[in-house]
Amino acid sequence: MRLIALVLGVATTLVSTIAGADNLSVAEVGSFHVGGRAVSLTGLPTRDVVFTAGSQPIKVDPNGDFEVEQMYVQYIKLAQPKARYPLLLWHGGGLTGVTWETKPDGKPGWQLFFLRAGHDVYVSDAVERGRASWARYPEIFSGEPLFRTKKQAWEDFRIGAVGSYKLSAADRVALPGQLFPTEAFDQFFKQGVPRWASTDTQIQAAYHQLVQKVCPCVIIVHSQGGNFGFNAALTAPDKVKGLIAIEPSGAPKPEAAGGGKLKAVPHLVVWGDYIAQSPLWTRFVPASQAYAAALRAEGGVADWWELPKMGVTGNGHMLMMDRNSDQIAQMIQKWMGEKGLMR
Amino acid sequence: MRLIALVLGVATTLVSTIAGADNLSVAEVGSFHVGGRAVSLTGLPTRDVVFTAGSQPIKVDPNGDFEVEQMYVQYIKLAQPKARYPLLLWHGGGLTGVTWETKPDGKPGWQLFFLRAGHDVYVSDAVERGRASWARYPEIFSGEPLFRTKKQAWEDFRIGAVGSYKLSAADRVALPGQLFPTEAFDQFFKQGVPRWASTDTQIQAAYHQLVQKVCPCVIIVHSQGGNFGFNAALTAPDKVKGLIAIEPSGAPKPEAAGGGKLKAVPHLVVWGDYIAQSPLWTRFVPASQAYAAALRAEGGVADWWELPKMGVTGNGHMLMMDRNSDQIAQMIQKWMGEKGLMR
Repeated sequence: MRLIALVLGVATTLVSTIAGADNLSVAEVGSFHVGGRAVSLTGLPTRDVVFTAGSQPIKVDPNGDFEVEQMYVQYIKLAQPKARYPLLLWHGGGLTGVTWETKPDGKPGWQLFFLRAGHDVYVSDAVERGRASWARYPEIFSGEPLFRTKKQAWEDFRIGAVGSYKLSAADRVALPGQLFPTEAFDQFFKQGVPRWASTDTQIQAAYHQLVQKVCPCVIIVHSQGGNFGFNAALTAPDKVKGLIAIEPSGAPKPEAAGGGKLKAVPHLVVWGDYIAQSPLWTRFVPASQAYAAALRAEGGVADWWELPKMGVTGNGHMLMMDRNSDQIAQMIQKWMGEKGLMR
Repeated sequence: MRLIALVLGVATTLVSTIAGADNLSVAEVGSFHVGGRAVSLTGLPTRDVVFTAGSQPIKVDPNGDFEVEQMYVQYIKLAQPKARYPLLLWHGGGLTGVTWETKPDGKPGWQLFFLRAGHDVYVSDAVERGRASWARYPEIFSGEPLFRTKKQAWEDFRIGAVGSYKLSAADRVALPGQLFPTEAFDQFFKQGVPRWASTDTQIQAAYHQLVQKVCPCVIIVHSQGGNFGFNAALTAPDKVKGLIAIEPSGAPKPEAAGGGKLKAVPHLVVWGDYIAQSPLWTRFVPASQAYAAALRAEGGVADWWELPKMGVTGNGHMLMMDRNSDQIAQMIQKWMGEKGLMR
């Protein structure tokens, strides 16, 4: 029996070396584009464009056949997932799926946290962001791209109070107790991408197609993604098995929850700190508050977490990047278990 | 002993279940942005922009502080890599790192092939593409974005002959024996992103920073990435341990290879089929041909593969997406082994 114990010991060591506590056994890594449409531009004039001062102009012909308004999705599937359904992570405005990856300070983000917790994880870029690509404007997209400034992000994301942003990192004063890694704020800003104010319909359409392609699933949405996620659940209540909205910037009208069609789809809304100090978020919160109340009135589950009231303080809008991001992820993981979303 | 054999059998089954032949034991999944610079725009006029016909205009203020010209890098690190160095995959023009991921027909691409072959794999988006983001023009980038048309891709990538592109997929005629999954051509096109003709300097600068951050490494480059990769090796011959150029669209001048500084850095240049039928590629090939010859004249290794001469026919420019992509990847894998790049 000592020999058997020895052999078992060797085998155990082998197992833990190959698939140790920190290692993931991954069945597949992959990606795809979904949604969108073919479009042809014709009859537009060609133009001469000078790309480098002093060089010959290049003739630019905007006409031709294109694919537009698709979104990009990347997945990592585990050999032995512990979650019942894949977990989809939908980012907010002016950002991409990078929101969920390694944090700006180099520490692991929620993608890796939820992989380690046993979920197949799908990280996506919405229409016009990142690897989803964007289309010529004003011919295809209307309006023009908006570029978020550092001041907007610093203040709107409640890292510092309104008026506290300065060009020099050393001069910026964060809100008291703020847990965003402010030393990595400029690094965070490298993740930003332009956005349009005219593409909500196209973004939502591609999300609907994504849900039809890969769900049943659980979805975590952030900020601008909130409204898209709420609508995805309303449109496919048989496919969306749980929705976690992190600081949603909007929500459907309460009437949309009528008929109790989301009774079987647990919702959770999570808010960080400093809301009362932010005119922007004070204005944004009521929409999802009213929507969550309507879900409950219809017999559904719509939990409402204001983290400071639960003893978790110091989180701004990008709480998945904050120093206590694992703590919040763990709370959400526990909620998913309680809602029967783990095996 | 039978009991021991039984225990060993159970242990082996356990190991193969947890980390089976098709499963990857992954130590870490992560990403980062590298390179770029802070820039401030001031004194530009605000403008009223109408985003949706009939709606109130939105005031757009282009001024503010931004981060620009960074690149995006995503990595998957194995628990037990068999390669000596991480493998970096650099895409071509008008595309992103998606080039290397799941193929447009849904089958595994080179990212997964080389992970399974034992490499830590880094897939990146060059400056201005995909998750790297892009900067306002003409204020920061000069010129304007160029959008590749389906006709350009169909013909320039040697999927069909010049003049064979049609709007309707059913009417397109591929080159005889073509191995690109033509039924997935429109799906492939969803991967395309706009490009500028004025950002080579910024792209190269970020690549140099990437090499300094993560190498020693081996790099596989494609098309426009060719020139960036050759220059990366010239600039950091101590960091780049091998360079594989897939259909490079350009190369440094042969004089750049002088002094034998790349003697210890094996190079491999790979070409698909139908080159002689393509005026574009007939014009592009000589630059890397002369450069490879110069590397050899200086005592270096610069292998030159014209796949049809090796009995592998039917490949166009996107050969990592062709039906025989695994066969070509396996040939490159064998070359890396022969060059001492595997453990």
